[in-house]
Amino acid sequence: MTAIGILGGTGRMGRAIADAATAAGVAIAGTTARDGTTSIATLAGAADVLVDFTTPDALAGHLDAAVAAGTPLIIGTTGLLPDHHALIDAAAARIPLIQTYNTSLGVNLLRGLVEEAARRLGPDWDIDIVEMHHRHKLDTPSGTALLLGASANIGRGAADGHALNRFDRMQDGPHGREEGGIYYASLRGGSVAGDHQVIFATDGERIELGHRAESRAIFAKGAVKAALWLAEPGRAPGRYTMADVLGLA
Amino acid sequence: MTAIGILGGTGRMGRAIADAATAAGVAIAGTTARDGTTSIATLAGAADVLVDFTTPDALAGHLDAAVAAGTPLIIGTTGLLPDHHALIDAAAARIPLIQTYNTSLGVNLLRGLVEEAARRLGPDWDIDIVEMHHRHKLDTPSGTALLLGASANIGRGAADGHALNRFDRMQDGPHGREEGGIYYASLRGGSVAGDHQVIFATDGERIELGHRAESRAIFAKGAVKAALWLAEPGRAPGRYTMADVLGLA
Amino acid sequence: MTAIGILGGTGRMGRAIADAATAAGVAIAGTTARDGTTSIATLAGAADVLVDFTTPDALAGHLDAAVAAGTPLIIGTTGLLPDHHALIDAAAARIPLIQTYNTSLGVNLLRGLVEEAARRLGPDWDIDIVEMHHRHKLDTPSGTALLLGASANIGRGAADGHALNRFDRMQDGPHGREEGGIYYASLRGGSVAGDHQVIFATDGERIELGHRAESRAIFAKGAVKAALWLAEPGRAPGRYTMADVLGLA
Amino acid sequence: MTAIGILGGTGRMGRAIADAATAAGVAIAGTTARDGTTSIATLAGAADVLVDFTTPDALAGHLDAAVAAGTPLIIGTTGLLPDHHALIDAAAARIPLIQTYNTSLGVNLLRGLVEEAARRLGPDWDIDIVEMHHRHKLDTPSGTALLLGASANIGRGAADGHALNRFDRMQDGPHGREEGGIYYASLRGGSVAGDHQVIFATDGERIELGHRAESRAIFAKGAVKAALWLAEPGRAPGRYTMADVLGLA
Repeated sequence: MTAIGILGGTGRMGRAIADAATAAGVAIAGTTARDGTTSIATLAGAADVLVDFTTPDALAGHLDAAVAAGTPLIIGTTGLLPDHHALIDAAAARIPLIQTYNTSLGVNLLRGLVEEAARRLGPDWDIDIVEMHHRHKLDTPSGTALLLGASANIGRGAADGHALNRFDRMQDGPHGREEGGIYYASLRGGSVAGDHQVIFATDGERIELGHRAESRAIFAKGAVKAALWLAEPGRAPGRYTMADVLGLA
Repeated sequence: MTAIGILGGTGRMGRAIADAATAAGVAIAGTTARDGTTSIATLAGAADVLVDFTTPDALAGHLDAAVAAGTPLIIGTTGLLPDHHALIDAAAARIPLIQTYNTSLGVNLLRGLVEEAARRLGPDWDIDIVEMHHRHKLDTPSGTALLLGASANIGRGAADGHALNRFDRMQDGPHGREEGGIYYASLRGGSVAGDHQVIFATDGERIELGHRAESRAIFAKGAVKAALWLAEPGRAPGRYTMADVLGLA
Repeated sequence: MTAIGILGGTGRMGRAIADAATAAGVAIAGTTARDGTTSIATLAGAADVLVDFTTPDALAGHLDAAVAAGTPLIIGTTGLLPDHHALIDAAAARIPLIQTYNTSLGVNLLRGLVEEAARRLGPDWDIDIVEMHHRHKLDTPSGTALLLGASANIGRGAADGHALNRFDRMQDGPHGREEGGIYYASLRGGSVAGDHQVIFATDGERIELGHRAESRAIFAKGAVKAALWLAEPGRAPGRYTMADVLGLA
Repeated sequence: MTAIGILGGTGRMGRAIADAATAAGVAIAGTTARDGTTSIATLAGAADVLVDFTTPDALAGHLDAAVAAGTPLIIGTTGLLPDHHALIDAAAARIPLIQTYNTSLGVNLLRGLVEEAARRLGPDWDIDIVEMHHRHKLDTPSGTALLLGASANIGRGAADGHALNRFDRMQDGPHGREEGGIYYASLRGGSVAGDHQVIFATDGERIELGHRAESRAIFAKGAVKAALWLAEPGRAPGRYTMADVLGLA
């Protein structure tokens, strides 16, 4: 039986993952908390796979512990910067690893539809991405919005998943729309688990591709599914994706 | 220069098609009206291609005239029954022909996304299609809803484009959801040109794939584009689709 | 300390109400289940207030027990018919009672906004109400849709809360919109707790007034709030509303 | 017969107003264009009422001409600053005047509903306003979003119509939600005439109050209606509102 180690086990997502693991009949090897009562290294040694939905500044320590113990790792932390991704790439040479901003089947399927639409529709179709999350979420736009935007970038033939991103609309003064740009808008309020919509608009018509999450339980369930997949015997080191886990690749 | 003959030229869509043709620099060979002042046979002889957005009961006469004159025909009439489709198939052996419930790029692209989503998502994702049109529209659900539903049927592996359709929800008494069924809901009001949404819902999450038309001008523009494509020299007889016209096939 | 008796305590809503009561520090006097292990009469005698989110056919027995014991009662059961309302009115002469299809603050506030909009907007604004609920809900339209529709009826000056309701749109054959009619559409899928939208549409514009519930927890919380209000010492017999509870009347 | 003078008659709104006036059987006294071929003073003298949907920098000259000729004025220009409002107030002491960001019945009715909801719902309901307009619109948020936000401010008891507004969400870095703040998000794309939604969100539920305009024809129609109202014989100088025109005050 696979045992999951939960980094940040006392946070909202940490508790949701514990619930999802229990519901799926998966063992919990242990959790770490902010007070440091459980050592990360100890947990990494005891677990078959680690799950990390914490904060960017904790990432380096978590990667080190996972690599030292040879334990696969799921990273669901949002707000990562290029330096974090470099650390993740380095670790992925040693252990199996998934970094994702969204573990739901719905969002990961939607990514493919967004990429396909962006590929088929010419630059006279403008792309805007709008998302809503609960009042406590600090980072804007959401990691999932950036994930959907990466699919739109790639569909449009951008050099990478963010070359066409534009974030300047709400700043002071008037702002025209740059042709081909991909724009973002963020709403925050209440306890919304996560709503996203990618809007393609041209003269006279719009296509709207959206996803609604009812609660963070679906993300926890997806994280457990990814953990089990990553912990399968013989999984080679590498940086995998939710598309691999879900059979969408 | 291609000349379009407009069947039912005094209706809303007929006038919109005349405007779109003029805007695109396409000649109008003539129109027919309800009072019968212009003969359908005469118009079929004078036009390079015919466009028909009228009523199902007029279809047989229009097909006969088009076949007799050897003139290609676009059929945008909604509310067709199996008998109508049999007549269309027979005519398509003699002339190039397109029958479609929606000529917009957006809806035809969306069809492909709906089919893909239905193929990828298992039967634990329920499918509902909701549409809104102006207060004068009589048929429910809309032809475009049925078109999107056909894509969902095919994606789900149904025997044909309507085997999984279910229309019984609003009748008297309680109605459970049949697993795998594709359900429809219709709203009517104001001057709405046509909004459609296909909803895939499972435990904890939803994917919503939608289209909004701002005015019927986009349908008229699409009909003119289809007419020009169908009237291209050397077009062989056959039943073509908007996906052929738009390069989505 | 107030003690709540939960009729149908093993159903989804019954369990949600037990959770909400516990979270609010309210005692649970007991519950009844389908197997009849707990007598309704015994529970009515032991509780300070009863909550009933069960089925219409159980209503008469629940009313009898509540009246016999002199215990206030909240009825959240949907799918009630005129005969049920007559029984409720009779009981309300003897005990304090609330019958409502929705206990959330949001929906009850929305009712007032819908009534106001319907009052201000003339008959050239068409009214449609669309709702979505989870795949297991049998009754269509939802009780909450009918509640919002009642506000629209009253705002439009109808003789009662349902005189303008029309339910015939999805049946066989074409159906025109009757001027002034209030139309309903229902979607079912996944685990949706309850989304409602009232659409006012006229030439060129639409007003959309909607509510989204993330989980049935808000209904349970509202039911507990209503129960505490109804159980306050000195509450006279009568048929009260959520507007009374929430201070919106 | 009332004759309307259209300032900026060659712009999109100018032409739409001319169409709406013609459709309503109202005379057009003349129009001004960017090339200055028609003098503003001459037009102000010839017209019974002036309509100005141009740019903020043209406002002072338009006000001067209207006051000099004693001609009532409708101002629909967006992007006004406090200095512009001071000029408008001064002119309103001499002529009848309306300054509004939106002339539609729907939006002006919605303002009242938003104010009422904001008054009734406590500060644990967060308020976000999201709007979408065509790709050419430069100012963010839209004037109509600010108008709806002003109603929300007033409903919440703010000192004025913008004290609680917050615009900082999309700038660099993480941003928490300030309790009681009213936040804005803007989307731009295609030819969208104007969609607005005010979202009230709390734990477990959301109220969404929205408006969709299908084309700018409804704004032009509303401007003509306001012009006729303002030009009625005996209308005293003063700064009026669309609520006065529409009987919503």
